[in-house]
Amino acid sequence: MKDQLTETLEKIAPLDRLAMSEARLRQDTLTKPRGSLGRLEDLATQLAGIQGLSLPRVKHKAIITMAADHGVVAEGVSAYPQDVTPQMVYNFLNGGAGVNVIARQISARLVIVDMGVAAKMRSNPRLLSRKVAPGTSNMVLGPAMTEEAARRSLEVGIEVVTNEVGKGLDIIGTGDMGIGNTTSSSAICAVMTRNAVPKVTGKGTGIPDGQLDHKVAVIEKAIKLNKPDSGKPLEVLAKVGGFEIGGITGVILGAAANRIPVVIDGFISGAAALIAAALAPQVKDYLIAAHVSAEPGHRLVLDHLGLKPLLDLGMRLGEGTGAALGIFMAETAARVLSEMATFADAGVSAKSEDKA
Amino acid sequence: MKDQLTETLEKIAPLDRLAMSEARLRQDTLTKPRGSLGRLEDLATQLAGIQGLSLPRVKHKAIITMAADHGVVAEGVSAYPQDVTPQMVYNFLNGGAGVNVIARQISARLVIVDMGVAAKMRSNPRLLSRKVAPGTSNMVLGPAMTEEAARRSLEVGIEVVTNEVGKGLDIIGTGDMGIGNTTSSSAICAVMTRNAVPKVTGKGTGIPDGQLDHKVAVIEKAIKLNKPDSGKPLEVLAKVGGFEIGGITGVILGAAANRIPVVIDGFISGAAALIAAALAPQVKDYLIAAHVSAEPGHRLVLDHLGLKPLLDLGMRLGEGTGAALGIFMAETAARVLSEMATFADAGVSAKSEDKA
Repeated sequence: MKDQLTETLEKIAPLDRLAMSEARLRQDTLTKPRGSLGRLEDLATQLAGIQGLSLPRVKHKAIITMAADHGVVAEGVSAYPQDVTPQMVYNFLNGGAGVNVIARQISARLVIVDMGVAAKMRSNPRLLSRKVAPGTSNMVLGPAMTEEAARRSLEVGIEVVTNEVGKGLDIIGTGDMGIGNTTSSSAICAVMTRNAVPKVTGKGTGIPDGQLDHKVAVIEKAIKLNKPDSGKPLEVLAKVGGFEIGGITGVILGAAANRIPVVIDGFISGAAALIAAALAPQVKDYLIAAHVSAEPGHRLVLDHLGLKPLLDLGMRLGEGTGAALGIFMAETAARVLSEMATFADAGVSAKSEDKA
Repeated sequence: MKDQLTETLEKIAPLDRLAMSEARLRQDTLTKPRGSLGRLEDLATQLAGIQGLSLPRVKHKAIITMAADHGVVAEGVSAYPQDVTPQMVYNFLNGGAGVNVIARQISARLVIVDMGVAAKMRSNPRLLSRKVAPGTSNMVLGPAMTEEAARRSLEVGIEVVTNEVGKGLDIIGTGDMGIGNTTSSSAICAVMTRNAVPKVTGKGTGIPDGQLDHKVAVIEKAIKLNKPDSGKPLEVLAKVGGFEIGGITGVILGAAANRIPVVIDGFISGAAALIAAALAPQVKDYLIAAHVSAEPGHRLVLDHLGLKPLLDLGMRLGEGTGAALGIFMAETAARVLSEMATFADAGVSAKSEDKA
């Protein structure tokens, strides 16, 4: 019997070219000059290809925000103490974080998952407890997790998103929380995109210049010690990744397997997308890059994946805040395609050269 | 007794620095790294300064879309026949245009104004009939309108937005419809930003390359004949402008006089903003540039006004479609500032260096 991960990877199919061409044809009959809605038009076509519907739907929206801790924080790579991870999870549960506000603004449900917070969390009906382990090991001393744990984190992500599909889901956004997770993401980014560590490493939550040099040195040390092989994405995740990154990778793969468009958030979700795309290159067609974050590695991640961000607002909060804005753009694009009148419907004269 | 325009110009006051500093202070207590919501944070601060509220409100939203015709279309500058202006106005009234869909998506009311369509419009309770004249005169033969008509178009814009303020209004978006209006807007842009005509002239609704050269020649001819003086903005509007451009100028001025943030749309709204800012430089602080359009002159307009667009999606439809997306961003920015929990509220640990 095939395992769940293999089954999921095999289910990821090419986009529906017929639905895309129907969407594009309809776009050109709508009461506007051709192409005048720019990237909203391309986005609607992509949604059509993913969903296999010439009129894609973006009604049922969810953001999955995954939290976990990182052993590497012992090296002093973050401006915030590790306690902030569970504290922010409680903040999510109470509706007070940035992602809560923006999710409300776009009428998306928010799914909060404990993938590996290094604290015992009070039980809460809104929290999915899927702790793989209470935080990763410190990657400068050895692998962050076992390959078994890496695989488990992917399986959890697949399970969580599949469960959301069961409730009705037209689009998914990814989000993360985890003190230290820009450190892991920079490591993944350096390995997978073959860029030097200083080029892909930024100030995360806002460390000072001196600490940035230290962060770079820590990442270089972890890579030198663990020797992750970019050809083996699960190994990379295990050696220098994190449980929330693995979880998001699973969400991406599980969504694509179910023909659900995935709006990826910032740098951490981008690192997860690198792992996902290495496991199943086809998955790239299912990705919508919401924005480019202020973390310098993020643009390199998007370039590597061949994605062009919709927004460039200097955001670097994570949590799914950027993804939420991207979902709004996707919903707008889909509504325009479905709801605009055609030239014929509205009795509007066509362009001179288009006349019969 | 002062006239309405002078009164409006005198009412435009500096931003409320206290409200802005309170907004900024609160921003830094919210559960996120400082500055991590990027431009959304700056936008919330600007809204605070405009409205004079440390917690700005973006609940009552409207888009004012103004339509008029241009005598210069006789020169063959557009890909569409002039009939399309009234046809699109009916499309707006029936809810089928791009701006209708995006206005619904952001729950904004849409106000449609006939500023000077060159056709007798069927009366409709949703259409504000404020025709200054049935289309401008052909600007290659003389001024597009009299200075009296230019002044009248501003007054109409002021009256329309003031009426909306009376209904409850927290933010306004501008929009336009008018076959030939990128030609007028390029002329205004060339004069007001002192750029050469070819640099500020684009393909509008999508004319072919050969027709673009002709469009440039037409604009150069109109400027050479009319000699508009950039130091006299009303004269520029009269000589090479349009009634919807004057109307939008009035909307911008009237909104600023009432401390209402103005989200400007694309190139045509940008041309109106150039006239408005020349009449009252203070008005620039009240403007939010929704996006940069695919028309090449638009970026020069925004640079001249010192505005940085929120979005860059290759859009060039006008109507207020870009403004609607910008209003969504503003509403999101305001909600984040009001609704996010503070570090103290949520019991989240502060950054190491911020600890007392």
